[in-house]
Amino acid sequence: MFGSILENVRKNSPLVHNITNYVTVNDCANILLACGASPIMSDEPDDVVDITSICAGLNINIGTLNKQTISAMKIAGKTANSLNHTVLLDPVGAGASKLRTETAYQLLEEVKFNVIRGNISEIKTLASGSGSTKGVDADVADKVTEENLDEAVAFAKAFAAKAGAVIAITGAIDIVADAKKAYCILNGHPMMSSITGTGCQLSAMTTAFVAANPDQPLEAASAAVCSMGLAGEIAHKRLSPLDGNSTYRNYIIDAIYHLTPAQLEEGAKYEVR
Amino acid sequence: MFGSILENVRKNSPLVHNITNYVTVNDCANILLACGASPIMSDEPDDVVDITSICAGLNINIGTLNKQTISAMKIAGKTANSLNHTVLLDPVGAGASKLRTETAYQLLEEVKFNVIRGNISEIKTLASGSGSTKGVDADVADKVTEENLDEAVAFAKAFAAKAGAVIAITGAIDIVADAKKAYCILNGHPMMSSITGTGCQLSAMTTAFVAANPDQPLEAASAAVCSMGLAGEIAHKRLSPLDGNSTYRNYIIDAIYHLTPAQLEEGAKYEVR
Amino acid sequence: MFGSILENVRKNSPLVHNITNYVTVNDCANILLACGASPIMSDEPDDVVDITSICAGLNINIGTLNKQTISAMKIAGKTANSLNHTVLLDPVGAGASKLRTETAYQLLEEVKFNVIRGNISEIKTLASGSGSTKGVDADVADKVTEENLDEAVAFAKAFAAKAGAVIAITGAIDIVADAKKAYCILNGHPMMSSITGTGCQLSAMTTAFVAANPDQPLEAASAAVCSMGLAGEIAHKRLSPLDGNSTYRNYIIDAIYHLTPAQLEEGAKYEVR
Repeated sequence: MFGSILENVRKNSPLVHNITNYVTVNDCANILLACGASPIMSDEPDDVVDITSICAGLNINIGTLNKQTISAMKIAGKTANSLNHTVLLDPVGAGASKLRTETAYQLLEEVKFNVIRGNISEIKTLASGSGSTKGVDADVADKVTEENLDEAVAFAKAFAAKAGAVIAITGAIDIVADAKKAYCILNGHPMMSSITGTGCQLSAMTTAFVAANPDQPLEAASAAVCSMGLAGEIAHKRLSPLDGNSTYRNYIIDAIYHLTPAQLEEGAKYEVR
Repeated sequence: MFGSILENVRKNSPLVHNITNYVTVNDCANILLACGASPIMSDEPDDVVDITSICAGLNINIGTLNKQTISAMKIAGKTANSLNHTVLLDPVGAGASKLRTETAYQLLEEVKFNVIRGNISEIKTLASGSGSTKGVDADVADKVTEENLDEAVAFAKAFAAKAGAVIAITGAIDIVADAKKAYCILNGHPMMSSITGTGCQLSAMTTAFVAANPDQPLEAASAAVCSMGLAGEIAHKRLSPLDGNSTYRNYIIDAIYHLTPAQLEEGAKYEVR
Repeated sequence: MFGSILENVRKNSPLVHNITNYVTVNDCANILLACGASPIMSDEPDDVVDITSICAGLNINIGTLNKQTISAMKIAGKTANSLNHTVLLDPVGAGASKLRTETAYQLLEEVKFNVIRGNISEIKTLASGSGSTKGVDADVADKVTEENLDEAVAFAKAFAAKAGAVIAITGAIDIVADAKKAYCILNGHPMMSSITGTGCQLSAMTTAFVAANPDQPLEAASAAVCSMGLAGEIAHKRLSPLDGNSTYRNYIIDAIYHLTPAQLEEGAKYEVR
């Protein structure tokens, strides 16, 4: 199934509008191209309506927020909603500053997201605080492990139900859940955390996967998470003793470029809970 | 001839002021260094007069427009004009949004460009709409092929005459034209379109080539286009089976770094029409 | 000694807040991760107090200044001062434009910097002009050589005394000085100047090194400068004939990723004056 999802990305080549941080934006663009999608970036409030209208998906990432961009995020999000486009939120740093946390809450209030992707700490911040999602028990551990996986899955499903979105919590074990079903994903390599922006890249790619497979957002998001982790595994095997995190970054994008549906089907490591 | 143009870039090492999008700006800086030029970036209206004054060329790219930057583009463009510097416009996304299209028109009205570089769709938007360039027949196909090359060349020459600029239309076949003469260039590799920002990089490099060869802008711009395409060919030959678009990006810049005048003379594939 | 300084970076993993230019920001983030630190970027005035509060160091780089960011730099700098964090200034382009020069002066007036890192021209601009540092004789040559090294060292020490900061002047020969002591460093490779942002990356990394070794800022900054130069040497040895500045950029970050304390101890080339 994940193989056909990737095939759809390659076939439909969705154009993805990214309002994202300036730290990792180039890698986001290149990984979108690598997976078969196309990137476009625009964060000026007066530009985003036109740009998001010609796209299939919108990726909102709050990594280097500024006030003008917040306004662009809301305008673009509402426009994308009205056009029934896929919209994803990456709440980078929610919980780390008041501006980021409150912006994430505002976005959750004003925009309907199809997918929310973050680490456990960011997702807990979102789940515990927003008006519309208040009531979700975010009293789970700060790291998802085999031991607390059931609790984390229950939390992800509960937040998915409240937010009406697929929730992707990424870490050593990734959880991708809607209200009823969760994929627990084991792909990836610890060295991925030594590269800036693997999470941002995954968010961009997830937007493309869901935009190309709008009828199965849970599976599409899970396929994107598996693809990123699998690319991390494939790329790690290529590393020579002198290669470090910069070469690894390039090789991960390269691995997405070459990833085949068969490779993804075979390499995806997950269980459903 | 193209060889001596490249030699001049290496010898004069022009400093190029870039007001460009934050997606591909790092690659623009590195390819400028690779070809022998030097980059400087500044997009604050209060900074650009001083910065552009110490440069030899100005590269204006509207890829991630915001309103403050538009003002900086106009101020810098007028200053560069008054100093007789090379000024290039890369109208990224003209035609895709009203803001981008109108900004491109305004820039054409207020700034004199020595070179305008874009894809056929962007150049058609510019040619058909701007007040000062109205009257150019932009009824050419959306893709330049061997079959419609004569029409496309005629269009490029007509727009070059109206705009008083060298027009570079890049795609599978590139056309670089002034009012009377056009270079039709066949260098390049299809995989270049899987990298973000090869067009932006070419615009930055073209600014450097023309700034270092101000007396022959048509040939200098053509040499830059050939260099980029040739680098794409050389870099593609280096790719191993696991290398994808990210490694390819690095190898293209590497190929520009090592490109010799002799290599360019020998590898440039073009005809004059 | 430099070995144990690097060990402390790896052990303490300082979180470094960067307000830096959008040209080289991705490389700054990846080199921070490579050396064992963690990056966070934020330049919105309403966000920087929260963000810098959770960090150990603040890296202020004026490479692509805009007015909103200047305000963020001042607010973050004062907050970091009040929390006794390490604060570094990279005055990119000071002397090249009035806005950059005056912003650097204002930052020197309003923020206490632990380290100031720039090239000789930028540091001379700072030393000769700022109110609080007026009186330093900046009549040294524009390039540090073996011949004028004594004068340059005297200048660096004098400015260090006036500014109350460690001064790092980088070039073919690097000088890292406080009021009494200077490390003259010979690591590095000329090809490093063909990569955009090696200076920016060094500033980010220096912030991390000093933040992890707050009791020996002179030695920590010197260790960072040696590490960057040594990485340039190690990476250069890996280059194949077709590799250029883009691959070199990746290999330098890779070399920092693998740099061991023993390698640094053995490879650091400096004398104390």
